[in-house]
Amino acid sequence: MPEIFSYDYALQSDYEDELRSFRDAFYLPDPNLIYLDGNSLGVLPNSTPQLLDHVVKHEWGNRLIRSWNEGWYERPSETGASLANLLGAHPEEVIMADSTSVNLFKLAFAALKYQHGRTSIVSDALNFPSDLYVLQGLVEHFGRQYQLRLVPSPDGIGIEMDKLAELLDKQTALLSLSHIVFKSSFMYDMKEVSRLAHDKGALVIWDLSHAAGAVPVRLNESGADMAIGCTYKYLNGGPGSPAFLYVRKDLQEHLQSPIWGWFGQNKPFNFDIQYKAAAGIHRFYAGSPPMLSLSSLHPSLDIITKAGIERLRLKSISQTEYLISLFRHYLQSLGFGLGSPTDSAQRGSHVSLCHPEAFRICKALINPPYGEKTIIPDFREPDNIRMGIAPLYNRYTDIFEAVMRMKTIVETASYEDFDKNRSAVS
Amino acid sequence: MPEIFSYDYALQSDYEDELRSFRDAFYLPDPNLIYLDGNSLGVLPNSTPQLLDHVVKHEWGNRLIRSWNEGWYERPSETGASLANLLGAHPEEVIMADSTSVNLFKLAFAALKYQHGRTSIVSDALNFPSDLYVLQGLVEHFGRQYQLRLVPSPDGIGIEMDKLAELLDKQTALLSLSHIVFKSSFMYDMKEVSRLAHDKGALVIWDLSHAAGAVPVRLNESGADMAIGCTYKYLNGGPGSPAFLYVRKDLQEHLQSPIWGWFGQNKPFNFDIQYKAAAGIHRFYAGSPPMLSLSSLHPSLDIITKAGIERLRLKSISQTEYLISLFRHYLQSLGFGLGSPTDSAQRGSHVSLCHPEAFRICKALINPPYGEKTIIPDFREPDNIRMGIAPLYNRYTDIFEAVMRMKTIVETASYEDFDKNRSAVS
Repeated sequence: MPEIFSYDYALQSDYEDELRSFRDAFYLPDPNLIYLDGNSLGVLPNSTPQLLDHVVKHEWGNRLIRSWNEGWYERPSETGASLANLLGAHPEEVIMADSTSVNLFKLAFAALKYQHGRTSIVSDALNFPSDLYVLQGLVEHFGRQYQLRLVPSPDGIGIEMDKLAELLDKQTALLSLSHIVFKSSFMYDMKEVSRLAHDKGALVIWDLSHAAGAVPVRLNESGADMAIGCTYKYLNGGPGSPAFLYVRKDLQEHLQSPIWGWFGQNKPFNFDIQYKAAAGIHRFYAGSPPMLSLSSLHPSLDIITKAGIERLRLKSISQTEYLISLFRHYLQSLGFGLGSPTDSAQRGSHVSLCHPEAFRICKALINPPYGEKTIIPDFREPDNIRMGIAPLYNRYTDIFEAVMRMKTIVETASYEDFDKNRSAVS
Repeated sequence: MPEIFSYDYALQSDYEDELRSFRDAFYLPDPNLIYLDGNSLGVLPNSTPQLLDHVVKHEWGNRLIRSWNEGWYERPSETGASLANLLGAHPEEVIMADSTSVNLFKLAFAALKYQHGRTSIVSDALNFPSDLYVLQGLVEHFGRQYQLRLVPSPDGIGIEMDKLAELLDKQTALLSLSHIVFKSSFMYDMKEVSRLAHDKGALVIWDLSHAAGAVPVRLNESGADMAIGCTYKYLNGGPGSPAFLYVRKDLQEHLQSPIWGWFGQNKPFNFDIQYKAAAGIHRFYAGSPPMLSLSSLHPSLDIITKAGIERLRLKSISQTEYLISLFRHYLQSLGFGLGSPTDSAQRGSHVSLCHPEAFRICKALINPPYGEKTIIPDFREPDNIRMGIAPLYNRYTDIFEAVMRMKTIVETASYEDFDKNRSAVS
């Protein structure tokens, strides 16, 4: 094997990668693009355009309204059942519906009603802002009878279990956390957190947006109560593809969605004038699902199932460890810091590197000089270069080249070619 | 002109129809299909597959995350602004978001908070069931401090203004109505209703699902407060395309969405940990919009704008009047009744015919004997055959043929070939 910090080592690793053929299932047409943002928007599976063409021309165009009886009506549940398999849940515990925010609203609202009398909601300072917004909105709308308490993160990277435990008590109605944190990639031990929460009688909602398709999630085994998440990151469902929602089976009948919608009604096509909640997980549907955006999720679910989430996780660990090794060797002395946990057991599939000039370094990566590759990571305030590793299609050589470019950019101070205005990078 | 009840008259009417060329803009590949269900799911515009292919292969496939800065982020607002034009509203008063049910929930919740102290919600017995479900859910979740009062419809077709006025008083927080009723096609005088409600200080939410793209809606001119609606009926956005939401400009800052989401935040890409509502209509966004299902709405909005909503309305009135004439001449003596208003000023673009065997007549229309055309209307409980007239693509001959087939089915009692089990027709 070549020396670990050489390009040849990356090449050899790609060659030996037993999952390397899965890259061919995706549309990666530009050899001059290195895409390390699959944790914001996953790339397009090659078979998605053809599938969508079928949905549009045949299901909508030819079959029209009849398609509701020919598969559409069951599709959100069937897609949820396929996804349940990746999440360690039963098929009748997962549905596709609405957006992550709307699903968090529905479940958090329902859980607060169920936990009547308790007065606190716990989350952490690393949670995705819009999850906190939804919780803040609920505090406001329930007339401030709840206190929203955030577990602090002294290092901005992780959360200590004893600090979390301190905020949980008999008044805690709900604990709302991201399984894998959006910025640092810190990953909670779901089983341990469930135990801590349940000891106090609190329910837990997990946001799996950065976990689904990236790590093996074991909802049932971990005693998870509820979960939500988006499908356009590691699940490659396309921009704004519908979110998912999980409620453990024995809890379903105790919760009631605040949005009493058409698809959550017991028998929607009876047009009864009085709402009656559907049995089981179906009660959490609201309106008609976006069939095009929903259908576009299928190709990737098939690919991930074939690749195997356990094998993907092994490759992801190998690649993030590799990235961290390169960081230590090439970047640490140039003012870069590691914004992610060093222990892979506490880390998801993205790695954040910190640098005072992170914003302009990102700009320089995305807008390279003539002849260099375009490299797309994410910038996240205040100083994070977030590199998403999607083991289905990212290569060791991608990681090597990205690190070498960052080294060159900082060594030559070429980020200074870009202004500091932060409006243009997402 | 040929005699009005002859096939030649229908042919001649199609020939003289100045909008007839717009039919060519839609995918209607089967000459043996007569589709009278454009008010459930509009047909596919011919240019939609190519547009979607571009969104999928270029915007998602090639540009990936960069597309959020290259048009996606503004698309829900821009699409809303285009639609505003059809609804008689300002561009900054309409956005595309979520589903009709979720939008009704958001606006009704916000309106109830704003109308704090008032204790009644008024709707009518003809409203779409899932609109009533959403309102019932709000009554439940606000601890039953509200009473939901429904204006009765003695004939199941229309609502009398004095009956509506009776239920409105100083305790009325909110009036929630469908502008055009889903079953009978009864259409409210929006201006008159707004005046009645505003006299008592009540706010009005209009569900425009059966009106948008079918009749000229004049939200501003009518003094409308809020509106919602779907886009997959006369707007041909495709199955589950995102809904829209309107709030009149001077009311926007007074209302707050209960779902404090990512896209409704003041500056979503700052990732502030504390929510601050965006200015204006943007505060009613929640999560990421489904970009594929949203984009598929554009071709039809262009076509409708070209055809002109006023001209479409004139053709729609002519066609529904024609259908009612044929009903009187051919069907009334066979046990059919008219389930829609006779006055076109009180009628939308669909017509309901009633018959005790309506369910099996629909089955017979949809499943014709060999050599006959397939005719697709909607069945609606208990006895409605609902015929949607989409003047962009429906022909006078379509209507003639549908009426003649119903006549034959009932005269020969061939509906008896079908069982009474009601699970199979949507």
